[in-house]
Amino acid sequence: MNYQAPLNDMQFVLLDVLGVGNLSQFDKYTDASPELIVTILDEMGKFSAEVLHPINKAGDQQGCQYDPETHVVTTPEGFKAAYKQFVEAGWTALDAPVEWGGQGLPHVLKFVVDEMVCSTNLSLGMYPGLTHGAISALHAHGADELKETYLAKLVSGEWSGTMCLTEPQCGTDLGLIRTRATPQDDGTYLIEGTKIWITGGEHDLADNIVHLVLAKLPGAPDTTKGISLFLVPKVLPDSGERNPVYCGGLEHKMGIKGSATCVMNFESARGWLVGEANDGMRAMFTMMNEARLMVGMQGLGIAEMAYQESLGFARERLQGRALTGAANPDGPADPIIVHPDVRRMLMRQKVLNEGMRALALFTGHQLDLSVAHPDATVREEADDLVQLLTPVVKAFLTDEGFNNANVGLQVLGGAGFTTDWPLEQLVRDCRIARIYEGTNGIQALDLVGRKLGMAGGRLVVRLFALLKAWAGAESAPYADQLTSSIQALEHATGWIAEQGIPDPDQAAAAASPYLRLVALVMLAYLWSRMAATAQEKLDRGEGNEAMLNGKLVSARYYFEKLLPEAEWLLRDITSGKESMMAMQEEYWAA
Amino acid sequence: MNYQAPLNDMQFVLLDVLGVGNLSQFDKYTDASPELIVTILDEMGKFSAEVLHPINKAGDQQGCQYDPETHVVTTPEGFKAAYKQFVEAGWTALDAPVEWGGQGLPHVLKFVVDEMVCSTNLSLGMYPGLTHGAISALHAHGADELKETYLAKLVSGEWSGTMCLTEPQCGTDLGLIRTRATPQDDGTYLIEGTKIWITGGEHDLADNIVHLVLAKLPGAPDTTKGISLFLVPKVLPDSGERNPVYCGGLEHKMGIKGSATCVMNFESARGWLVGEANDGMRAMFTMMNEARLMVGMQGLGIAEMAYQESLGFARERLQGRALTGAANPDGPADPIIVHPDVRRMLMRQKVLNEGMRALALFTGHQLDLSVAHPDATVREEADDLVQLLTPVVKAFLTDEGFNNANVGLQVLGGAGFTTDWPLEQLVRDCRIARIYEGTNGIQALDLVGRKLGMAGGRLVVRLFALLKAWAGAESAPYADQLTSSIQALEHATGWIAEQGIPDPDQAAAAASPYLRLVALVMLAYLWSRMAATAQEKLDRGEGNEAMLNGKLVSARYYFEKLLPEAEWLLRDITSGKESMMAMQEEYWAA
Repeated sequence: MNYQAPLNDMQFVLLDVLGVGNLSQFDKYTDASPELIVTILDEMGKFSAEVLHPINKAGDQQGCQYDPETHVVTTPEGFKAAYKQFVEAGWTALDAPVEWGGQGLPHVLKFVVDEMVCSTNLSLGMYPGLTHGAISALHAHGADELKETYLAKLVSGEWSGTMCLTEPQCGTDLGLIRTRATPQDDGTYLIEGTKIWITGGEHDLADNIVHLVLAKLPGAPDTTKGISLFLVPKVLPDSGERNPVYCGGLEHKMGIKGSATCVMNFESARGWLVGEANDGMRAMFTMMNEARLMVGMQGLGIAEMAYQESLGFARERLQGRALTGAANPDGPADPIIVHPDVRRMLMRQKVLNEGMRALALFTGHQLDLSVAHPDATVREEADDLVQLLTPVVKAFLTDEGFNNANVGLQVLGGAGFTTDWPLEQLVRDCRIARIYEGTNGIQALDLVGRKLGMAGGRLVVRLFALLKAWAGAESAPYADQLTSSIQALEHATGWIAEQGIPDPDQAAAAASPYLRLVALVMLAYLWSRMAATAQEKLDRGEGNEAMLNGKLVSARYYFEKLLPEAEWLLRDITSGKESMMAMQEEYWAA
Repeated sequence: MNYQAPLNDMQFVLLDVLGVGNLSQFDKYTDASPELIVTILDEMGKFSAEVLHPINKAGDQQGCQYDPETHVVTTPEGFKAAYKQFVEAGWTALDAPVEWGGQGLPHVLKFVVDEMVCSTNLSLGMYPGLTHGAISALHAHGADELKETYLAKLVSGEWSGTMCLTEPQCGTDLGLIRTRATPQDDGTYLIEGTKIWITGGEHDLADNIVHLVLAKLPGAPDTTKGISLFLVPKVLPDSGERNPVYCGGLEHKMGIKGSATCVMNFESARGWLVGEANDGMRAMFTMMNEARLMVGMQGLGIAEMAYQESLGFARERLQGRALTGAANPDGPADPIIVHPDVRRMLMRQKVLNEGMRALALFTGHQLDLSVAHPDATVREEADDLVQLLTPVVKAFLTDEGFNNANVGLQVLGGAGFTTDWPLEQLVRDCRIARIYEGTNGIQALDLVGRKLGMAGGRLVVRLFALLKAWAGAESAPYADQLTSSIQALEHATGWIAEQGIPDPDQAAAAASPYLRLVALVMLAYLWSRMAATAQEKLDRGEGNEAMLNGKLVSARYYFEKLLPEAEWLLRDITSGKESMMAMQEEYWAA
């Protein structure tokens, strides 16, 4: 079936629940009127359904091709034309800086656009996705000449960008990188080394590829404090000469086969330093943080597509009869959506997907407040929330995106396991999102090991204030359940602070269930807010009645069936590290 | 890495915990001495590692080939030779009836053998797996002439078998089948129709293929009470003529690509009735019930392989440092197994896999008691447990097999997503196990809708008696936690009985979490027993000390971190159907 962008839900969350329309009162976002927001959503809804979706399956089946003679990578049929349309429609410029040709719109719009792109063609979406990170890093840390040479072309999508971090011996632990940068007399550097898993390292979509490469200067310390960031173009813009950076092969992967995942050999390629020497990790995190949020949208995007496919199937597949009497007495059987267990699967998808969307857009909205609000205190508060929630969005949306894609596949039964239906591709495509840009375990360690302690614990204190202010309001739906989940989170946070400071293994042992607990409590907060807004609109006789009633049922499902997991997570966390750390090396496979 | 059969754990569960060695005191199993059991485990451990495992990856990459001109299906390279060795070593005959050339050994041994086969080559294991079901159905329901013609050849593996149930318009709801059987004057039938998703419907491993086909006789009612079972050989044994049953194509699947999943066209093929007319569902369930148990072993087998791969990786991959100080100070980094979050993933795999193995072998042992014990009361009790636990073994072991395969992939990070490592294949291969032989949702409905009410509720009452007898013993480890999980299960069972009899939708809404709750309580019971046995053996200074100590740590992990899910499931169950059933048709995609 074709994709139907969930525009009603997106608008409901953005405009009715979060009040994103108010961003237009800030100088930075004067253009971002509610009308413009609606228009943008509509346009990407159409574009993704009409241009991106139709070539997604062939992209999986053909994959990318590599020619070892010429080092050329060819993307699947239709990708080049679709990318051209994507660029020409201005989608690469949406939230990019105005001074380099961007539209300068709120970042939260990029979040919804990313969701639609990832629902319909995750592989194709990877190419502009990486470019976006390169733009941000260059804009924040690059020297003026670099910006002038590269930014406009990246913003327009004529050129694309990459992040070159991983090497065979290091993924998570970047202190181990071996790529070297040798300074030249003209102020440039020669870059030598091999990078792996480079998304869009080579392809045929854009005229030039701008690599942002982590490398070590001579004499730099062998830790992450000895890493610098360099810009290495495929083609040197001044001379038009080919820079000696070549694709050495493609990874063969479980999914996202239309996305070229390259081994990249830098054979004394010319590079330019971005930011300060030995300060590459800071620029890397500029890319990484926004990439993490985007990867979260990948999980959600795939889960939304899986929901739509499985809902369509459940409505049409005739099999068995409702237990309470035939629902389709004139047909040979009832559609399987009559069965409670099928509805359980559909509800799980719907309720978690909508909750995840609300969480992502809440975070995107805070990101915009953190850069656009006139009040420095508000900006700081918003930034605190973004920092705290970035690993949560990345990990929870990709874990549950994958789980929900699998639930969607399950609704289809045997059909879902065949390539005649798109579910199996969705499952394979989104599996990587739990891994790249930092595995979800690393996200949990970032949350517990860095974000909880930052600024004396201010980030999480602000989150509690926000949650309690809402839960304490008279009108908050499901206030009791929400309050007790907040208490569980406070309890867990206190336990980690108390145990984890003297013994960091205790904090690390608790990290994954703690991240999940934060996500569940955030979804409880947002489901309470969505239920409140839905009820208000129903009371006023406004809006789409079916959608609003669906919100009320969904909120109930969330509080009755999903939120109680929080108690389990708390018990897991507070039972501590012992049952993991007591395993001696010789016990594992005895 | 190569596969190392978990022989120590298998022996511990079979001989030390369950006392399967005692089966040799029964007439039916006099040969099944502990020594013979150990020998059989050793042999399959070697066979699976040396013969089945090496061809598993090529099987995935090549898949099966279909020639539309000749209708011939060719299996991947090496499959034919490996199948020949499998047959010649007598593995198809292990627990088959002695009168037809079988070895007549306990069924529980078949369970462990199946696990090893599925760990190393699920696709290849499918062919003899289906034959086994055909043997059982024919042995239980076939007329003597049919048995004489077919059984010895099936038991020896010279011929293979299939189950032909599904048609395009019906999978779960077999009342909708359209395949017709027309009686002939000679007492045979002509079978006409199309069956889909027929495992091993056509292949090049065996000389003949014996299809067991559900079809309708003229005038039969349009429900499952109008279905009969027919035997339709590919080659007619008397004349050597080709019977007109042809493969019309292969399914293109996410995984198990070495297993031929065929569309089968019966073009007036000659068939023989198996059992009584219109009583085909009973014979079908003979096949189905044992197939369900075997599919459970598929989930476990894959999960075990994933555990071994990810454990090996975690011990070798150097990345980062232990938070409490370098564990490998002379190396560039520590192996990732030092990190609590990595250990969490490994522990989850180990503890659930061992718990699932214990649950499956407990059920297999009861199956043997139900056929071999001299006391009719014991036989009935054992049969009650098998019936109750069959859907639990099928669904829980395949759900958690898949989840654990994914956990294993996650330990590898990006490497796990590439085809250079076996994890992504394991994930794809085992995904189907949650679907075929009745989706896991259907298993839950079987448990709640059929098994709970059977014989006036006797089955679950017997289970409670068994659980409480153990939990009430002075020496039961974790008795308090076990007891409270049993109470949660009793509470849930009472709720379903009370709500589900007047309103079957309430029972159906509770089915999936209820099945999972049964599984968690069974694992609690078995982890308590395993801990008790391990401690006894340690106290006596017997056995493999590392393994026994590992059991004690694992039991602690289970009770501290996994069993508390039971409380969540109870809340889900008792919150009822409303939040699912209140969704009106127009709410779903509003």
